[in-house]
Amino acid sequence: MPVRKSSATWEGGLKGGKGSYKAESGLGGTYSFGSRFESAKASNPEELLAAALAACYSMALSGALEKNGTPSTRVATEVACTIEKVGEGFKITKMHLVTRAKVPNANAAAFEKIAQATKDGCPVSQVFKGTVPLTLEAKLE
Amino acid sequence: MPVRKSSATWEGGLKGGKGSYKAESGLGGTYSFGSRFESAKASNPEELLAAALAACYSMALSGALEKNGTPSTRVATEVACTIEKVGEGFKITKMHLVTRAKVPNANAAAFEKIAQATKDGCPVSQVFKGTVPLTLEAKLE
Repeated sequence: MPVRKSSATWEGGLKGGKGSYKAESGLGGTYSFGSRFESAKASNPEELLAAALAACYSMALSGALEKNGTPSTRVATEVACTIEKVGEGFKITKMHLVTRAKVPNANAAAFEKIAQATKDGCPVSQVFKGTVPLTLEAKLE
Repeated sequence: MPVRKSSATWEGGLKGGKGSYKAESGLGGTYSFGSRFESAKASNPEELLAAALAACYSMALSGALEKNGTPSTRVATEVACTIEKVGEGFKITKMHLVTRAKVPNANAAAFEKIAQATKDGCPVSQVFKGTVPLTLEAKLE
């Protein structure tokens, strides 16, 4: 099975230093204390976590709807990742998902049930189990 | 405190469909069943998770070494994320970190202790606590 590798380098101290990351697909970005905990423009680990969960969730929900015999034509998910100062450190405290799905032959109750089950069961969701609460708002378009 | 948002869209079924994601910094990528579970060239959620952990870890280790009075000039971390078929689904089963640090006044034993503590304590590491085992190989350069 696949092993996916990414790397990141940080040069200097926590507040004055600078970071960059890259992944095998060519993906890359830069980050700093300011772009992570303040409002500087650049990347940060939290948007990567949010993207990972959004990508996994949209794919998994499409798969689950297909398996249910009600395939979607489009699933779009936004994930908001909150990081907060806790004591002397920082903690990721919440991941909130908002998904919108186009499902030609949907039954609203069945859709809601499948959407919630996917929030608990998709591979990236499972990473957060017991460590960060996930909440979901799911709507049919 | 910051809230970081990313989104992803999947169109079509699990095996024949296609996905794309984007984050606030401008980061974006495409993915498919083939690029996630086979060898097609494109992105996947697992390289995003690996990048998030590598970025957080390199930054946090630099901060911890600085706090210890032995600041690093450079910390480079590679993270390998393994996803495996388990039953009918997929599961992220392992995250392996390899870090290399340039620390002018390092004490090897103290460095090892700080590196291992950061593996357990950095904000992204905490997300995996109890859900995915993290292993670390740390070396001074």
